[in-house]
Amino acid sequence: MAIDQVEMSTNPFDDDKLHEECGVFGLYGHPDSAAHVALGLHALQHRGQEAAGIVSFDGTHFHSHRSLGSVGDHFSEANVIGQLKGRSAIGHVRYSTSGETVLRNVQPLFADLAGGGLAIAHNGNITNATQLRRQLEKRGSIFQSTMDTEVIVHLIATCSRQDFVEKFIDALHHILGAYSLVIQTHEGLIGARDPHGVRPLVLGELDGSYILCSETCALDIIGAKFVRDIDPGEVVVIDEDGLRSLRPFRTSVQKRFCVFEYIYFSRPDSVVEGINVYESRKKIGAELAKEYGVDADLVVPVPDSGVPGAIGYAEYANLPFDLGIIRNHYVGRTFIEPMDSIRHLGVRLKHNANRAALAGKRVVLVDDSIVRGTTSTKIVELVRAAGAKEVHMRIASPPTSHSCFYGVDTPERSQLLAYQMDTQAMGEYIGVDSLAFISIDGMYRAMGFVGRDNDSPQMCDACFTGDYPIALTDHLDGEESAQLSLLDEASEK
Amino acid sequence: MAIDQVEMSTNPFDDDKLHEECGVFGLYGHPDSAAHVALGLHALQHRGQEAAGIVSFDGTHFHSHRSLGSVGDHFSEANVIGQLKGRSAIGHVRYSTSGETVLRNVQPLFADLAGGGLAIAHNGNITNATQLRRQLEKRGSIFQSTMDTEVIVHLIATCSRQDFVEKFIDALHHILGAYSLVIQTHEGLIGARDPHGVRPLVLGELDGSYILCSETCALDIIGAKFVRDIDPGEVVVIDEDGLRSLRPFRTSVQKRFCVFEYIYFSRPDSVVEGINVYESRKKIGAELAKEYGVDADLVVPVPDSGVPGAIGYAEYANLPFDLGIIRNHYVGRTFIEPMDSIRHLGVRLKHNANRAALAGKRVVLVDDSIVRGTTSTKIVELVRAAGAKEVHMRIASPPTSHSCFYGVDTPERSQLLAYQMDTQAMGEYIGVDSLAFISIDGMYRAMGFVGRDNDSPQMCDACFTGDYPIALTDHLDGEESAQLSLLDEASEK
Amino acid sequence: MAIDQVEMSTNPFDDDKLHEECGVFGLYGHPDSAAHVALGLHALQHRGQEAAGIVSFDGTHFHSHRSLGSVGDHFSEANVIGQLKGRSAIGHVRYSTSGETVLRNVQPLFADLAGGGLAIAHNGNITNATQLRRQLEKRGSIFQSTMDTEVIVHLIATCSRQDFVEKFIDALHHILGAYSLVIQTHEGLIGARDPHGVRPLVLGELDGSYILCSETCALDIIGAKFVRDIDPGEVVVIDEDGLRSLRPFRTSVQKRFCVFEYIYFSRPDSVVEGINVYESRKKIGAELAKEYGVDADLVVPVPDSGVPGAIGYAEYANLPFDLGIIRNHYVGRTFIEPMDSIRHLGVRLKHNANRAALAGKRVVLVDDSIVRGTTSTKIVELVRAAGAKEVHMRIASPPTSHSCFYGVDTPERSQLLAYQMDTQAMGEYIGVDSLAFISIDGMYRAMGFVGRDNDSPQMCDACFTGDYPIALTDHLDGEESAQLSLLDEASEK
Amino acid sequence: MAIDQVEMSTNPFDDDKLHEECGVFGLYGHPDSAAHVALGLHALQHRGQEAAGIVSFDGTHFHSHRSLGSVGDHFSEANVIGQLKGRSAIGHVRYSTSGETVLRNVQPLFADLAGGGLAIAHNGNITNATQLRRQLEKRGSIFQSTMDTEVIVHLIATCSRQDFVEKFIDALHHILGAYSLVIQTHEGLIGARDPHGVRPLVLGELDGSYILCSETCALDIIGAKFVRDIDPGEVVVIDEDGLRSLRPFRTSVQKRFCVFEYIYFSRPDSVVEGINVYESRKKIGAELAKEYGVDADLVVPVPDSGVPGAIGYAEYANLPFDLGIIRNHYVGRTFIEPMDSIRHLGVRLKHNANRAALAGKRVVLVDDSIVRGTTSTKIVELVRAAGAKEVHMRIASPPTSHSCFYGVDTPERSQLLAYQMDTQAMGEYIGVDSLAFISIDGMYRAMGFVGRDNDSPQMCDACFTGDYPIALTDHLDGEESAQLSLLDEASEK
Repeated sequence: MAIDQVEMSTNPFDDDKLHEECGVFGLYGHPDSAAHVALGLHALQHRGQEAAGIVSFDGTHFHSHRSLGSVGDHFSEANVIGQLKGRSAIGHVRYSTSGETVLRNVQPLFADLAGGGLAIAHNGNITNATQLRRQLEKRGSIFQSTMDTEVIVHLIATCSRQDFVEKFIDALHHILGAYSLVIQTHEGLIGARDPHGVRPLVLGELDGSYILCSETCALDIIGAKFVRDIDPGEVVVIDEDGLRSLRPFRTSVQKRFCVFEYIYFSRPDSVVEGINVYESRKKIGAELAKEYGVDADLVVPVPDSGVPGAIGYAEYANLPFDLGIIRNHYVGRTFIEPMDSIRHLGVRLKHNANRAALAGKRVVLVDDSIVRGTTSTKIVELVRAAGAKEVHMRIASPPTSHSCFYGVDTPERSQLLAYQMDTQAMGEYIGVDSLAFISIDGMYRAMGFVGRDNDSPQMCDACFTGDYPIALTDHLDGEESAQLSLLDEASEK
Repeated sequence: MAIDQVEMSTNPFDDDKLHEECGVFGLYGHPDSAAHVALGLHALQHRGQEAAGIVSFDGTHFHSHRSLGSVGDHFSEANVIGQLKGRSAIGHVRYSTSGETVLRNVQPLFADLAGGGLAIAHNGNITNATQLRRQLEKRGSIFQSTMDTEVIVHLIATCSRQDFVEKFIDALHHILGAYSLVIQTHEGLIGARDPHGVRPLVLGELDGSYILCSETCALDIIGAKFVRDIDPGEVVVIDEDGLRSLRPFRTSVQKRFCVFEYIYFSRPDSVVEGINVYESRKKIGAELAKEYGVDADLVVPVPDSGVPGAIGYAEYANLPFDLGIIRNHYVGRTFIEPMDSIRHLGVRLKHNANRAALAGKRVVLVDDSIVRGTTSTKIVELVRAAGAKEVHMRIASPPTSHSCFYGVDTPERSQLLAYQMDTQAMGEYIGVDSLAFISIDGMYRAMGFVGRDNDSPQMCDACFTGDYPIALTDHLDGEESAQLSLLDEASEK
Repeated sequence: MAIDQVEMSTNPFDDDKLHEECGVFGLYGHPDSAAHVALGLHALQHRGQEAAGIVSFDGTHFHSHRSLGSVGDHFSEANVIGQLKGRSAIGHVRYSTSGETVLRNVQPLFADLAGGGLAIAHNGNITNATQLRRQLEKRGSIFQSTMDTEVIVHLIATCSRQDFVEKFIDALHHILGAYSLVIQTHEGLIGARDPHGVRPLVLGELDGSYILCSETCALDIIGAKFVRDIDPGEVVVIDEDGLRSLRPFRTSVQKRFCVFEYIYFSRPDSVVEGINVYESRKKIGAELAKEYGVDADLVVPVPDSGVPGAIGYAEYANLPFDLGIIRNHYVGRTFIEPMDSIRHLGVRLKHNANRAALAGKRVVLVDDSIVRGTTSTKIVELVRAAGAKEVHMRIASPPTSHSCFYGVDTPERSQLLAYQMDTQAMGEYIGVDSLAFISIDGMYRAMGFVGRDNDSPQMCDACFTGDYPIALTDHLDGEESAQLSLLDEASEK
Repeated sequence: MAIDQVEMSTNPFDDDKLHEECGVFGLYGHPDSAAHVALGLHALQHRGQEAAGIVSFDGTHFHSHRSLGSVGDHFSEANVIGQLKGRSAIGHVRYSTSGETVLRNVQPLFADLAGGGLAIAHNGNITNATQLRRQLEKRGSIFQSTMDTEVIVHLIATCSRQDFVEKFIDALHHILGAYSLVIQTHEGLIGARDPHGVRPLVLGELDGSYILCSETCALDIIGAKFVRDIDPGEVVVIDEDGLRSLRPFRTSVQKRFCVFEYIYFSRPDSVVEGINVYESRKKIGAELAKEYGVDADLVVPVPDSGVPGAIGYAEYANLPFDLGIIRNHYVGRTFIEPMDSIRHLGVRLKHNANRAALAGKRVVLVDDSIVRGTTSTKIVELVRAAGAKEVHMRIASPPTSHSCFYGVDTPERSQLLAYQMDTQAMGEYIGVDSLAFISIDGMYRAMGFVGRDNDSPQMCDACFTGDYPIALTDHLDGEESAQLSLLDEASEK
């Protein structure tokens, strides 16, 4: 633990936001595969900036480059990309939700199996990983990381079947949880999505080459065509014979796509499961205005994630939309945290009030969600200090009252403001004149439903409802994670 | 030259934007001076991300840290700030307009004069620096950098007067050009602004300590109070006796503040020379709509700089405002440039069309300016590829037809699209259905004037009009810069 | 492969010398365990400079730091040592003989087993590692390195016994080869030496704490007391109950300590298996003079390894001893190799002739061994160019005619000069007036024997005789190593 | 000061040895000039390992690379050398004797003068540099370093003569002290040696190209031919017209070459002023045996510098010569200094006793000099702990009783053991049975003289006699150095 903590201090994130853990991208059969994967990962950077990795395969050897930090910082140099040879490559960007962020926990994870090499990139979270790990370790398997993903690799390695795809499908039948996987073998690319389809995975095509990636914006950046979403429970095998689709799971399982992908994670220009993210956010804003309208002078977004909701709100409410808060995008490393003397300056590093726009006004502040409430409190303070006469906060999601165990980095439930108090108390806590969250049904309406089907919910909304579609085996076990080794990899210079 | 080119590859900028060269920040008499300067520079990061530096003075010694890259990357660690001891410090962020970006050209520039140490941070450009440098070199002065700023230091060093402030004012009488200077001596802080007041410099106050900096947003970040703008031609001396204001220049000189600070450079939340930047941009947008309205379905900004203009346009034109183009803020280093195979992908690294918002629509695209036209061409391509039915581009500044010699990094005049062709040809070149720029008078109206006073222009608008208020000595000389040494500083590990 | 090659360019070694692969050092029960291990490794640096690593255990957690390069470069900083907490630690220095030198191949190797963590440091070579690896991989074990040592870890992990020491001894019964092992578990330290005792391992004691290390010079550096050599086939377990000695192998196995430890590997000040290395080398020099005296003016060593032999020779022959060749110890990285234009300068980087001592003289040149003959050829050239009248080379070991498979990095047999030609041809090849090697019996005499006991050789002298005491399973297999993955670990910044 | 102290922690030296400050190397007219300069500097590495630099000139531009650390570490890569283009280059290795070791104090020093660029490499010390600096600063010159060498550059810059060589000679007439200089201009190379010829400078030739360097061993490494020593007071100008020799000083000045070059600084294989260094050291050893013979069993050198003296002693005394102390050449960085817990281990990091050779013996220990006495004390302790019956120390130089001001890094006089006490007390202090230093006359005899000519000493022996041949202007001034700025250059990554 000790050693790498020194090297782990990069966290350029809002600590009061939920964090998506990962983005994945794979490309099969293209002469510049690694360069395209790097670009795809760059487009998926919002899904994880803690670490990035690419593994390519050149027909004989695998080539890997993984590092802590952003894609632009570590995969922008021609000599790095040039060494990732081959016509096939997969990549991964990560915000850690499982395992510490040290190099050995950076994906794609590579393993040298008896049948050949294997690289795997995973978005999601396996909910019985600890249980499986214990069983595998008892049998003699040695884990090199603390990532849940590694159990898949060991399940494949210890499977007695002959065919790789069979081994893989066998492994999938052992694991529970949310996963979108892209795997590189010496034969080709494999993609898979868990039976509920919690996390996204789309299929694209560029000059005859297939692509598997988390969001459509990663197709756009390289000019690739969107083909279709991979279905929940589908396994696709891409090799020199083209693409085969397998459906190894019973089809009766209900689709439960993560609604938070719309609320916050996905990029606004992505089309996710057929719905444009930007549009869905604007519609939530409009629903909010319909449900919780208020007499005001202008609508101000908390940038950047609050912008589409605020536009939708302003349009519906016929109020002016204005940038009353300016965000500084030059973040650098953790920056200020070690400097005691200026800790109190807090949120101003990233946000500043645009006083001229706010002074004397009744302001509707639109944000995407409230997690712990710390950022909101500081934002409201800023806005009031800039002279706003009234501050009405409208949140483009229902209250976040439950933790996610399917790949989103939520704090423990006890730290969620919506778990600690009701909406009115929350409004007082963050200091606004009024606070409202969109209703569950309103959110579903914005997605094009008539409301939530409580018998058979259309999406995974566990963070708002506590209705968890997949068993939380490890968590029911009474302990969150086994006493894994805390050994850290050393730095290499 | 050779060596440092290897290390110079950081240019995370639009190459089709004009670049502001610098931001300055000085603080006198505060126990955490360096930490506050670092924060101030962070708020000014938009004025220059190529390099940053801080020099502090602890009563006995000067301490300096300068590095290529951003403030957040290099001044965020407690141990760096901790070594910059003292109750007084100045800092600088830079986008190079004079001299190559190697460490020895990073400011603050320090010199050890007979009368004591001196550190200087400069925003602007000295237009007779080459001429002065030649004279000083003939006399035996040895320059350590290729920055124009260094002539000021040598003029001070070789001045026969006794008092430091007198030496400094004597030096100012030799130089021509645009400058806002912050100087740290062993006695205190000095600030100065050129007689035309081309570049901004404001005075702030925090807990009884004085601050001199480029923009008010740098005061906001540390919770400091805005006191006033430093006047054109004013010199302020801040030391243990407080603040003295000197006016060493004839007051008949006309104020000519750079209008581009409103158009693009300054942060929207700054108040510059009494005008809120965001408001001025919105008003330009409204003037544009008034002057060049068009039948359309929605108004889309080119993010981020086109946003306020687009909001103003949409409001005036009563059209929906929508994020039809999404910007990826994770830039990293130059990234893709070395990869030949993907060079054609170009602008998509930073921008992506939000297809759902654009398809089938008649779009008004609002941007702040057109320089070479390359970015605009690619943006229009993106928007058309996303299915826009019509694309009308509206530019929130007049055509940029002349180079700036006062501290803005403009390409040579011959590369400016507005120098090469008229507006209609430009529209065809970038592929829009219509193109319009705000008129000169419209721009002045948005700033609160009735129009441009052609006899006595209220601002420096040379880039639009060619009306240069300050002599361009070096450039009239027939050569842009002397045959300066191309020696590079070595790297230090 | 590609990526790490970039980072692998450190090879500050004579390519014409045999290389010892490793040194190991473990300390149990000392408050400054990691600092002492770092010092011990520093004293063992001659046994491997490519990489170094330390793993400590603090009673709860393991802490690891491994890096490419020397101990002094990477373990000299207080903050690194400070993070390697705990009263127990083991370390390793490495010159690779098995597996590429990338970080994942740097020892100590750590694994997180079901029964607890395990770190292992190994000196030697396992001769059936490839065979075992294939078996383990078929069973589902996933290897993280390409080191032979890792099979031991997997054998332990998959063993069905309960007690860790029993598992370990079980593993030892599967492996063949030469090994001196130091293992850190959560219970204590374990040391083991292969049944033939090919590689050295000694027991020391400091302030009541036990030490296990490769040579006595590593005890001297920290002021520790030498206790005894670990016996061939002995396993020692050191924990809070003290030290237990186990003898799990049949005692009938013959001891065969590596004679090359005396010839070249061990440090002259070490006492190895009861014999002082420096003395043994001097005695070989004296035997050489006795066997192959020659009329000459002076005796000159090839520094540094030829010095003791030359002193012994000169003393016996009653000839002056002189430093006729000067060695430059400032080596740095590979240095010159990439510069084509100066490749021909070759050996002069490290050695220069001391012309004044050599000119006009009949010189006896003493070196420890001849491997490929390239260095000797260049040295002789140097000496002749400096004006030596005659050059007689005397080698303090028999002709190296066979490869080592027990942990010494010998080239393939076909590259050994002594395999290609007889002594006279070798002399002509390297350009000397006469060449002689000590006889096998002479070498044994210098070690205190009456000669080699051909029925039951007293030491492992396979490199001179081809008499391999341990089965070479992997090599009989017909292939040197399996097609292991060539994936490299990425760099971490 | 603060910042760079962090980066300055490399001091892989005996702190109880005198340190030579510098080595210089220049080559004119060779296609691989920089590569050859790098090799030459590598051969001169013993003259300074704190920093190294090379400046090349390609006919148009100067190229510079300077860095802290060794030549092998920073100039071994093809891409660094490849960027140092041109047929002419100079280089410098440095152990700081004047100015802190920060990058701006690393030579060659470059300046961009009115008449063209100038790079300078200096071995020696200017004894009126502070006085000259004050005068130049008053006149307006701005210094960029704290090196004495920089005054030469400013003297050249401010000289009113036209011709560069005349300016340079004019500058030489202002400076006092010891200097061997190599200068690169756009016209060619210039070499100069002070009128007393205190520091060495030799002329070599390779393939028709001239070389100027500190020692002949730097010629040997590249296969260059030694031509002659540059004479005291000589200036040589090397350009496309060949080599011109100028003698700008009165020839009546007495030659006073530094005797310590023989005692310790120069490499044993160099021929300095006509005398082979190794031979001179052996002869001193023999003189020592003659002057201070003692009944003993063996002669042991303190490695490495005591070796030739010990060989000479043993030969004369007819005693066995043995390596009773083993030196570890793997030093790395400062290593152990920050670790409090092991500070007491002290000298063993570098030296270990070879117990087998010493136990029970009466030992003559030969070292080159005693400065503070700390190393000697520890060495004697080691030897006694290894069981030596008697320890007789013989020093191959007279007592070092005075500081050097001509380029050798001696401690203040008060710290010199020979200043504090007489020889007998010194012997007691370091714990030997007897201690003797060679006599002044004995030393001169070993150099081939009949003894010291006290009226007109043949060499500079001020450190032994206090007879300083050159005025110590700055030191007579009453202060060692002016209150120079303590600003440090920042690091560049």
